[in-house]
Amino acid sequence: MAANDPRVITDKEEMRRWSRAMRCQGKLIGFVPTMGYLHRGHLALVEEARKHSDVVVVSIYVNPGQFSPTEDLATYPSDFQGDILKLKSVPGGVDVVFHPQNLYDYGIKAKCGRGVNGNGSGAGSAVSCLEAKGFGHETWVRVERLEKGMCGKSRPVFFRGVATIVSKLFNIVEPDVALFGKKDYQQWRIIQQMVRDLDFPIRIIGSEIVRDSDGLAMSSRNVHLSPEDRQKALSISQSLSKAKIAAETGQVDSKSLRDAVIQEITESGGKVDYAEIVDQESLEAVEEDITSPVVFCVAAWFGKVRLIDNAEISH
Amino acid sequence: MAANDPRVITDKEEMRRWSRAMRCQGKLIGFVPTMGYLHRGHLALVEEARKHSDVVVVSIYVNPGQFSPTEDLATYPSDFQGDILKLKSVPGGVDVVFHPQNLYDYGIKAKCGRGVNGNGSGAGSAVSCLEAKGFGHETWVRVERLEKGMCGKSRPVFFRGVATIVSKLFNIVEPDVALFGKKDYQQWRIIQQMVRDLDFPIRIIGSEIVRDSDGLAMSSRNVHLSPEDRQKALSISQSLSKAKIAAETGQVDSKSLRDAVIQEITESGGKVDYAEIVDQESLEAVEEDITSPVVFCVAAWFGKVRLIDNAEISH
Repeated sequence: MAANDPRVITDKEEMRRWSRAMRCQGKLIGFVPTMGYLHRGHLALVEEARKHSDVVVVSIYVNPGQFSPTEDLATYPSDFQGDILKLKSVPGGVDVVFHPQNLYDYGIKAKCGRGVNGNGSGAGSAVSCLEAKGFGHETWVRVERLEKGMCGKSRPVFFRGVATIVSKLFNIVEPDVALFGKKDYQQWRIIQQMVRDLDFPIRIIGSEIVRDSDGLAMSSRNVHLSPEDRQKALSISQSLSKAKIAAETGQVDSKSLRDAVIQEITESGGKVDYAEIVDQESLEAVEEDITSPVVFCVAAWFGKVRLIDNAEISH
Repeated sequence: MAANDPRVITDKEEMRRWSRAMRCQGKLIGFVPTMGYLHRGHLALVEEARKHSDVVVVSIYVNPGQFSPTEDLATYPSDFQGDILKLKSVPGGVDVVFHPQNLYDYGIKAKCGRGVNGNGSGAGSAVSCLEAKGFGHETWVRVERLEKGMCGKSRPVFFRGVATIVSKLFNIVEPDVALFGKKDYQQWRIIQQMVRDLDFPIRIIGSEIVRDSDGLAMSSRNVHLSPEDRQKALSISQSLSKAKIAAETGQVDSKSLRDAVIQEITESGGKVDYAEIVDQESLEAVEEDITSPVVFCVAAWFGKVRLIDNAEISH
């Protein structure tokens, strides 16, 4: 049974008025921030959000602040009408889809003689697709330790952009609970830390990875994989799965676990960006034996598509 | 007629519950963040807050995150009971004094093998008094362009600390309106920019500088001035006042205006940290003729006390 059409809100003020009216009615507000082109992973987040709240808001916004100019902002897939249909298919549906056009257009002409925008000074040369657009945005939220490793190494503006847009969305949607997928494990931990450190009144819930029937972790970017590359990319989840079983049955040497995963992905034709076994809390690399709960995180390229995946390993 | 005693709240959650109850009653919440040891400048902010809101919250919290280890955190003056009496003297009083003990103690033991805290990476060597305390705080809000000049040069962790604590306080107090003194002109502009860039649902109002009868700008740090230094320190407001009159009556050459102020303060025995004429919006230095509204900002040392002051110059 399909749910009602969600209310689509594009205006920040209208979004906040809606949330505040709900809060004053005693309703708990659940929030799922997305960049659209929804897949079953997103829908699982929505289902999870329904369990923890009375009303659910999904945002659909592709954030230029988290893409570097060399990344795939221009080709990031979108299908707004398809997304609405998918959201209606979730039991209970969603109440609001927040779909702003540009969250960095403050309606004021920027006045910045030293360049149209903040120069990303905090990151040295860190510059995102936002800077070129010139809305004078210059405030960035940074989670300085957690943002450094793994994806932060090859994508230096990514987590700065994520923490900043999530802060903006939190200030607009004002949710009680927000859901993040654990496929983006580092992102999930960074948001948790940011919420704690900045006292956002929001509970962050991480949701388990959703996989296709062949084991590939769901991602909007999977659509760009050729059938051949998609087949090859299964080496990520398959090698991670083997590593998890090995580690949980006693083969706790981090280096040989990593070597095996790197070898399997490489032999399948992938290019490994990183394969790291890190502490689940601190995300610090575990270089020797695994002696506490860790997560094995991988990023690898297949053709022009960069995929990430991970496996939590209990100990 | 003295107002009622304000309610003193020390707990974050209790503070937020109070604000949310007020909001749902349709009340506008005004907020004046302070570090205590209140003077007439603070009380003017409270009076201004009353004009724009139905209930007023004043926070009193000395923030270790905005002091470097070489600065005066340990000797920053305090007088909580005196502050309460002063707040009661304001017509209408204040409704709540938020007086937390430690806004960085998250009740969780930090787990950071690479050091007890974030390493202030965004600022290179930027380290505040917070880092040494080890609560694992690692999230910083930075307004990257506006934080660079003037006070940002000699106090590299200051504005990072201010933007971060103000974000935390905003997330705890959830005000509709917040008041900042224009004596801290750069701070006021940074908060305005941060609120815009991060979509905080808060109106920021800047309040005019309040001066003692001799012209000295009110500051909690004035208490540390010896009587002699206090007399000498009048050279700041006096030279700024002359510069303002000169500029507004046609002497618009920035360099000679600055030279005169630096000379007067130096000859009085002060040590000028900076004396800059900057655009009121962008805070960019005006090096030649003044052709638009500017503000003349000064920081100078008298003995062990660093004072700041400024004068807006219309054009």
